[in-house]
Amino acid sequence: MSSPPIVSIRHLTEFAGQEVVVRGWVRHRRSSGKVQFLTIRDGTGDLQAVLSKGTLGEEQYGWATELTQESSLVLTGKPRADTRAPGGLELDVTRLQVIQVAQPFPIQPKEHSVGFLMEHRHLWLRSSRQRAILKIRHEIIKACRNFFDERDFVLIDTPIFTPSACEGTTTLFQTQYFDQTAYLTQSGQLYGEAAAAAFGKVYCFGPTFRAEKSKTRRHLMEFWMVEPEVAFAQLPDMMDLAEALLTSMIKNVVSNQREELAVLERDVAKLEAVAIPFPRVTYEEAISCLKKKGSPIQYGDDFGAEDETTLSNEFDKPVIVHRYPTAIKAFYMQPDPTHPDLALCMDVLAPEGYGEIIGGGQRIHDYDKLLARLKEHNLPQAAFQWYLDLRQYGSVPHAGFGMGIERVVAWICGLDHVRETIPFPRMLYRLYP
Amino acid sequence: MSSPPIVSIRHLTEFAGQEVVVRGWVRHRRSSGKVQFLTIRDGTGDLQAVLSKGTLGEEQYGWATELTQESSLVLTGKPRADTRAPGGLELDVTRLQVIQVAQPFPIQPKEHSVGFLMEHRHLWLRSSRQRAILKIRHEIIKACRNFFDERDFVLIDTPIFTPSACEGTTTLFQTQYFDQTAYLTQSGQLYGEAAAAAFGKVYCFGPTFRAEKSKTRRHLMEFWMVEPEVAFAQLPDMMDLAEALLTSMIKNVVSNQREELAVLERDVAKLEAVAIPFPRVTYEEAISCLKKKGSPIQYGDDFGAEDETTLSNEFDKPVIVHRYPTAIKAFYMQPDPTHPDLALCMDVLAPEGYGEIIGGGQRIHDYDKLLARLKEHNLPQAAFQWYLDLRQYGSVPHAGFGMGIERVVAWICGLDHVRETIPFPRMLYRLYP
Repeated sequence: MSSPPIVSIRHLTEFAGQEVVVRGWVRHRRSSGKVQFLTIRDGTGDLQAVLSKGTLGEEQYGWATELTQESSLVLTGKPRADTRAPGGLELDVTRLQVIQVAQPFPIQPKEHSVGFLMEHRHLWLRSSRQRAILKIRHEIIKACRNFFDERDFVLIDTPIFTPSACEGTTTLFQTQYFDQTAYLTQSGQLYGEAAAAAFGKVYCFGPTFRAEKSKTRRHLMEFWMVEPEVAFAQLPDMMDLAEALLTSMIKNVVSNQREELAVLERDVAKLEAVAIPFPRVTYEEAISCLKKKGSPIQYGDDFGAEDETTLSNEFDKPVIVHRYPTAIKAFYMQPDPTHPDLALCMDVLAPEGYGEIIGGGQRIHDYDKLLARLKEHNLPQAAFQWYLDLRQYGSVPHAGFGMGIERVVAWICGLDHVRETIPFPRMLYRLYP
Repeated sequence: MSSPPIVSIRHLTEFAGQEVVVRGWVRHRRSSGKVQFLTIRDGTGDLQAVLSKGTLGEEQYGWATELTQESSLVLTGKPRADTRAPGGLELDVTRLQVIQVAQPFPIQPKEHSVGFLMEHRHLWLRSSRQRAILKIRHEIIKACRNFFDERDFVLIDTPIFTPSACEGTTTLFQTQYFDQTAYLTQSGQLYGEAAAAAFGKVYCFGPTFRAEKSKTRRHLMEFWMVEPEVAFAQLPDMMDLAEALLTSMIKNVVSNQREELAVLERDVAKLEAVAIPFPRVTYEEAISCLKKKGSPIQYGDDFGAEDETTLSNEFDKPVIVHRYPTAIKAFYMQPDPTHPDLALCMDVLAPEGYGEIIGGGQRIHDYDKLLARLKEHNLPQAAFQWYLDLRQYGSVPHAGFGMGIERVVAWICGLDHVRETIPFPRMLYRLYP
């Protein structure tokens, strides 16, 4: 006699009426006389299982009454359509094997402090809400990679260990690398530029690091970033690319993660409103708008978190702010030929107060101009010689951007804080678990 | 009048006879009286372009004669089928725009020392061979992610910064993390185990770090690893999963990267020979085999690089070696119930002498057994309490493995050394560029 197939809960509907094996954990148990109702999760979905004394016999039924939250088990039974059940199915259990009766689970359906939950992150991951967020994170990352793959971008995994610091060492983590000091990358862009001259269109996608002694709802010490870089591209091309990328990701999440969005009680209409084209405003226009709204900001200042919130609340889709003053931007930014004190750069601010999710623009492609900017910024020429080299051997106008995954996840999921957007967040003073 | 479309070389065949714009770099130029033949690359392919004085006029033709290797340009013209040309097309150029005449390119079609090429890695990436390798790397990574995504695995990005060292601190990079010391991850496995209890099937895929003061053709300080982890899975499930993963990746590379494999002169028949099932031998059988071949290895020793080569040369497909002595394996390995001195673990060795590409097995799921092993290995219980917790709240048998991407790329591409398998390799004393 062959044993019944092991089936994931999400695929159970294909097996209605057949005997199957389901393996998982108990989320909830309730008793009704001679019947036990278990809500089981297996990572692919939730299922109601019905265990009756008549079918199981005294011994197995006795085990069922002992099952605590998170106990692990293997059930044999037949799925039966039941419109009242979550997922539209119930399992009539014919055999119960208990793998482990769990100790009292620390996380209960009540209010816990954030500190407590973070300390138990390894268990907190099992809650419906955390599972929904991380499935949406996966969908976002998949959509993002597919977007670039389908457009002939080549994946370039840029190094984590870098020899030199682009923007000062104060926010860099460093490590002893044999006889040298290595810094953990804050961006793969410079390496992406080298690769774009080889492959035309590239992207990198990996963890980046920022040792910022700040506790805000938008910052992590370790976060993932995707960074496309395109040879022959200019600023407007990046605006188009960012629009296409964001709308494509949202389309995939809304189509494929409906249940997860429902768990999070996300207002899907707000996501569906995100359509091309996005509003595009200059830095100067953004400053005027903020002043009118009462911000003390002055022309030449960078936006604070509150300014970003104010600006993004003006629109029901992401807004592209472009042409910031060169003085407040990184050394590699290409100046606008008609206004050399402005950089051909852009930030994309997410709506609903989520602030900056994308930053990028056009890079200086002239050797002398780049060398002058390195000197103005007191950066060591030797460490950047390879980067300068790119401007000697078939230099072309080129552009790219970086998109922070955790902020995008926070926005799309509608979360208050980025700490829930990554499985094991690294925050100020938080390294455990 | 609308301007002609900008077309990538790989899509040119769809535009035969139409006027198009191609942007790229000069790989090679040769002159034949009043005609210049340029080989152009744009990252998606190579193209022969024909520039005649008659069509271009004196001025533009003059520019063409000045073009050096790697000069960047924009060409307007019509693609014409020509069976003699690479890619089956030639471009009859009607307009030439030179973006930059390149300085003499340091890398020439002659022998350069490895040190020189590594020092110029940012330019070396442009060579046909390096481009082929990195495109195959991309295909391998894409195939690998698709493999897991299609099988309902959830992507879990595990942390780079970890608070504790699993296997001693001698091969760990460390950094000051505010008031603590953080170590750079060598594996996401422990975190994957926590996530597998939430999602059933998960994988992580990211950079890992090993501060090993060794110079071999198989080691990098920074390398990418994919690590599936599956709840309720046992050792044979991992063998099946590894077989399915490797054959799926090879199928994708062989189908989609034929030209790149040809550039590398890879013997594709050897890849096509990799079919399920793979031979499976015990550690004990492997030792006997090695002794017969004259190796001085003794039962209880770990395999050296040469032993791995000898073993893998016995087969024309990957070989799975399983059940190593517990004594030479990590603390978390589940002992074989019938031979408790053996671990339920496996390594997969690639053929053609490439050695270990996968290592994994079943993890201890019993709390007391795991605690005892932590103590035997002098590991601090407090730092691992979260990991022990997983054995209290619905613990289940579970298993997983790690696959090193660079070694797989080296094998599939048929390379002598892993240094060419990643865009910017980090090796002993090599941090630049």
